[in-house]
Amino acid sequence: MSLAGSVTIGDIRGALARLDGVVHRTPVLTSRRLEAMVGARVFVKAENFQRIGSFKYRGASNAIMRLGPEERSRGVLTYSSGNHAQAIALAGATQRVPATIVMPSDAPRVKLDATRGYLAGAPAPSEVVVYDRMATTREALGERIARERGLVIIPPYDHPDVIAGQGTCALELLEQLVADEPGAGLDRLYVCCGGGGLLSGCAIAAKALAPGCEVIGVEPEAADDATRSFASRTLHTVENPGTIADGARTPFLGRYTFAMVCAHADRMMTVGDDALVGAMRFAMASMKIVVEPTGALALAGLLRDAMERPEEIRGQRIGVIISGGNVDLTDLARLLLD
Amino acid sequence: MSLAGSVTIGDIRGALARLDGVVHRTPVLTSRRLEAMVGARVFVKAENFQRIGSFKYRGASNAIMRLGPEERSRGVLTYSSGNHAQAIALAGATQRVPATIVMPSDAPRVKLDATRGYLAGAPAPSEVVVYDRMATTREALGERIARERGLVIIPPYDHPDVIAGQGTCALELLEQLVADEPGAGLDRLYVCCGGGGLLSGCAIAAKALAPGCEVIGVEPEAADDATRSFASRTLHTVENPGTIADGARTPFLGRYTFAMVCAHADRMMTVGDDALVGAMRFAMASMKIVVEPTGALALAGLLRDAMERPEEIRGQRIGVIISGGNVDLTDLARLLLD
Repeated sequence: MSLAGSVTIGDIRGALARLDGVVHRTPVLTSRRLEAMVGARVFVKAENFQRIGSFKYRGASNAIMRLGPEERSRGVLTYSSGNHAQAIALAGATQRVPATIVMPSDAPRVKLDATRGYLAGAPAPSEVVVYDRMATTREALGERIARERGLVIIPPYDHPDVIAGQGTCALELLEQLVADEPGAGLDRLYVCCGGGGLLSGCAIAAKALAPGCEVIGVEPEAADDATRSFASRTLHTVENPGTIADGARTPFLGRYTFAMVCAHADRMMTVGDDALVGAMRFAMASMKIVVEPTGALALAGLLRDAMERPEEIRGQRIGVIISGGNVDLTDLARLLLD
Repeated sequence: MSLAGSVTIGDIRGALARLDGVVHRTPVLTSRRLEAMVGARVFVKAENFQRIGSFKYRGASNAIMRLGPEERSRGVLTYSSGNHAQAIALAGATQRVPATIVMPSDAPRVKLDATRGYLAGAPAPSEVVVYDRMATTREALGERIARERGLVIIPPYDHPDVIAGQGTCALELLEQLVADEPGAGLDRLYVCCGGGGLLSGCAIAAKALAPGCEVIGVEPEAADDATRSFASRTLHTVENPGTIADGARTPFLGRYTFAMVCAHADRMMTVGDDALVGAMRFAMASMKIVVEPTGALALAGLLRDAMERPEEIRGQRIGVIISGGNVDLTDLARLLLD
């Protein structure tokens, strides 16, 4: 089996059933102002309303729920400074599986505290292990600890169960559209791309349910590794990209996600930080929702396409995944005033 | 018939049926963090997701839809610098009734522009009439223009059809709770109070459907006229109160709303601007929603009660009406950084 084929719509359907009652069925929002601006029907899947404020809880929960009894008793480990850390911590607590989270010592205090807060409900031995970003890499440290303690590693994106979990976002969106209007589908779907887990899973789900649906991945301009990788079909990397979209600062796609994005996405595009702030402002002012910079990538991609290729979009049914809403309010205020 | 009895649950039920498909059925949000903080079940009615971003669209639409054919052809007039202006403008456009809106010349440009934008879709002759706040009062000017042009005045709150429309907020909330769980009700309901239209309508609806439900009105500390009026059963006023809750700077309750608040509310309380900012921050950080200062009054009231009288609240089922989300993002950013 090829890497690109290692997650199927059957896996995503299985994940959606498994996650029933575990993850929130997030709302699909519409905005007349947005639809007037782009000249199309737009369905916004609001994963900022997901538990822990991000779609990451889907993949983390699915991966933990797929473990066997022996693996569960050993416990899991992940390395992340972002939403995946909180997702694994809460999923560990909810599923009664010990969780170890490797985080850099200079991670924002609010994220360290939130992760520790969720872990407080997880069975022992659960802990946050902080490391010095200058002295080691998170992968090296994570692998050493996992080996020593016999833990199962659940990486942030490059794992079939994580990808299948993230794919439930698009599957759920398409099911919600059909529930509202039998036979309804999507002509295109915008999804943000960091490590590519969400984009891979959503592309597989969208292509299975709506084969004609064009799936578009959106990256920050400064972290365009996936866009270059997709264009050249060779894995490109970026190093410490300077973008406000902290969830998409990942240096490269994974082995699975590179293969899946190449096989299942139709197009990759980038947007600048100014466009992200514009999309965040639009979401706040017109839709009354709080979106983190990474969470605004897909909306910013749609708004850019609406300006640059309006005739292509007009009259379509378009899905947009808002991936998360975890933004420090002081940082947000500074972005709004800039 | 007494003034306090001039709106009944029958009127509010009629309004809810009339508004079906016209106003959004806004979501009822829950937050585990909020429930953990207050030790109770909390159901947040999110009217910031209402059309024009505020509950005001309910009362404005109901009042316009109740007009007879002759009144419709004459057109309506209102005076407001806030959400009611936009509500009447959009309701006029939607119901094909000419609308004249009297606004102060120093109203925020964004509100003047938004009101003119909605009016662009209303039948002629519709217009915004600006006036000099120093030279005349909005009531005097509004009444003169209405008399000269034969327009029907729809005031911002002191009108039975407006009050019945606003009451659909609480009726809809209670119906949504029952739909989720047969027999479910509320032990208490927090509602903001400016002119008292929302509080009056919601109190009447809540008392009719859940007689044991305690209805609590929440005002800004600096604009505590309704709290004093409620305590003394005499109408008190405030002049140019200094509060960030611009929608609750109304100087006094109206004739109808004074009688109704006295008859149907159980308690009035006040919260300071700091508490409003705290509630706005909580809504943004934990619930991912944007709330205007006035819209955060009810939530701030609950959070204050949770600190000051926790034993009274513990284990209850509590409703909170978030009344609107129209806040200038620059103003919001400044509040977050203060």
